[in-house]
Amino acid sequence: MSRYFLDQIDRMAGYAPGEQPRDGGFVKLNTNENPYPPSPRVARAIAGALDDRLRLYPDPVGTAFREAAATLHGVEPGMILAGNGSDDLLTILTRAFVGPGDAMAYPTPSYILYKTLAEIQGARAVEVPFEPDWTLDPARFARTGARLALVANPNSPSGTALPPDQLGAIAEGLDCPLVVDEAYVDFAEGDAIGLVAKHPNVIVLRTLSKGYSLAGLRLGYLVAWPAMVQGLIKVKDSYNCDTLSLAGGVAALGDRGHLAETRAKILATRARLIGAMKGLGYRVPESRANFAWCTDGPPAPEVYEALKARKILVRLMRYPGRDPGLRITVGTDGEIDRLLDALGSVG
Amino acid sequence: MSRYFLDQIDRMAGYAPGEQPRDGGFVKLNTNENPYPPSPRVARAIAGALDDRLRLYPDPVGTAFREAAATLHGVEPGMILAGNGSDDLLTILTRAFVGPGDAMAYPTPSYILYKTLAEIQGARAVEVPFEPDWTLDPARFARTGARLALVANPNSPSGTALPPDQLGAIAEGLDCPLVVDEAYVDFAEGDAIGLVAKHPNVIVLRTLSKGYSLAGLRLGYLVAWPAMVQGLIKVKDSYNCDTLSLAGGVAALGDRGHLAETRAKILATRARLIGAMKGLGYRVPESRANFAWCTDGPPAPEVYEALKARKILVRLMRYPGRDPGLRITVGTDGEIDRLLDALGSVG
Repeated sequence: MSRYFLDQIDRMAGYAPGEQPRDGGFVKLNTNENPYPPSPRVARAIAGALDDRLRLYPDPVGTAFREAAATLHGVEPGMILAGNGSDDLLTILTRAFVGPGDAMAYPTPSYILYKTLAEIQGARAVEVPFEPDWTLDPARFARTGARLALVANPNSPSGTALPPDQLGAIAEGLDCPLVVDEAYVDFAEGDAIGLVAKHPNVIVLRTLSKGYSLAGLRLGYLVAWPAMVQGLIKVKDSYNCDTLSLAGGVAALGDRGHLAETRAKILATRARLIGAMKGLGYRVPESRANFAWCTDGPPAPEVYEALKARKILVRLMRYPGRDPGLRITVGTDGEIDRLLDALGSVG
Repeated sequence: MSRYFLDQIDRMAGYAPGEQPRDGGFVKLNTNENPYPPSPRVARAIAGALDDRLRLYPDPVGTAFREAAATLHGVEPGMILAGNGSDDLLTILTRAFVGPGDAMAYPTPSYILYKTLAEIQGARAVEVPFEPDWTLDPARFARTGARLALVANPNSPSGTALPPDQLGAIAEGLDCPLVVDEAYVDFAEGDAIGLVAKHPNVIVLRTLSKGYSLAGLRLGYLVAWPAMVQGLIKVKDSYNCDTLSLAGGVAALGDRGHLAETRAKILATRARLIGAMKGLGYRVPESRANFAWCTDGPPAPEVYEALKARKILVRLMRYPGRDPGLRITVGTDGEIDRLLDALGSVG
């Protein structure tokens, strides 16, 4: 059977998403889901779309959602492309720009899916290490000869964010598209959308999975020049977003108050979590995301297992040349209390 | 901008899905949507899933849906892979099996997306012509040297179906996977799922868009050997199906009575439509799908335009070396009455 597959597919291990335990009762701090529910407008919008639209194909470009996102960011609707989660958009981007043997550049340590996507395309993954202070050297990107570069900002697992001028300098030095993956930007200050006007090679990626609490809906979008969007439309599946998620997405983007309220709670809990983890002896970089990256404490694999035995799931992450660390999602205050209690007895 | 794209993407035109008019009032017989609503259980199941699950990532393999499909077909759950519409599965299949320069074989005239998918991969599209009686010669497939072969059965635009032994002979002669795309099988007699056990290279593709009236939901699945499914999981997006469509899909598969009732109505209207079109001088092959392929009548482009002016949309299809034809979806009886009235005054 395996001989039917392309060599690179046969050889690769495949991306392992974070555990999604089917049995309940877990405090789930492993996949950076938002602990608070989405805007109540989302469920109302979806319930309202459960009609004759189910039997009809969706709008191929999700016009209403596109317009909502364009209004939010003050850009043209033609600069927005919706995707079945930002993973779908990452897939479209690699298929559009990267062929076998081509270089695809991204920082390390970062979102491990980037490597998987390079493998599927048969491309060469060129990893640019973060500096010790979690910044990146634009000159190192310029030297990669990449056909596509991706920077998660804020980054995972570190939670750190680059200053916009550093992203601009990276874009400037590249002769290829630079994807700024802003999955966690709703928990940060500022964003890179302003760079798109100045740098036609910048593509900003957003998701509704994190800030908007809609991981179950699969909806993301990108912001880029209209000519870029037109080219990417050729690569996407015709009807990549379903009618219900598009309807829910419009409602979610429209409820700014809900986002602000949720964000404020998470930022407060994040500060408390980071303070406590530092108090327990971990090193934790300043997080602009909804998680904390904890290293240099007690051995991470043992802590991970001990927490799991207490029905608390965090993400144990291993990167070559580094000690494993724990990436801990900012849950509710109650969930973080349980975590800290457990860590007290584990440590 | 275009220099950033892979050559094959830059050169290609992109797949044009059938028109989805935003203004209402059209009799829409152009994209083979089911004219009848889905099972009422679907909306209930989705409404019931509008809870805490929205903020959590979906089950990566859609276990409950997988089990429902496996039960329906009497196979192991590990033989089912769910997709964001069967288009998502077609994308996964081409990425898994076909690299630049590789041959990808499919019949002509058939589903025009196959060519687009070959183009995106930079593959060579090898088209095997249908015989005049709408059968295929297995020996011609065997000679293609394909890394992947696809046969829509029933076929679009013809609506015709191959006998299972012919599909088996095609599978036998190939040294690559054979995808039997059964998008329209709910309107046919029999299916190819029985071939999977005998031919490990056969992959059967299903969608809930047509028979189940759920084009807006984006849900499909494939049936293949477990080792095949395991390999394909490496290529799919981690969370390619959302929580709501998976919940709706389980409900849809469970309502056999609704499917049978809808199907019976469509088959009766199909017979009437085909009889009437033949009476108007068109050639119409025996359809096993929810549409009729009408050729050799009055000039198709003119009829298409005249119908459109009367707010009736059918699909005008052009294939190299053939006169254009009209692919007409089997609508409700009332819709087909309007079509036939209009054709009477057009002709």
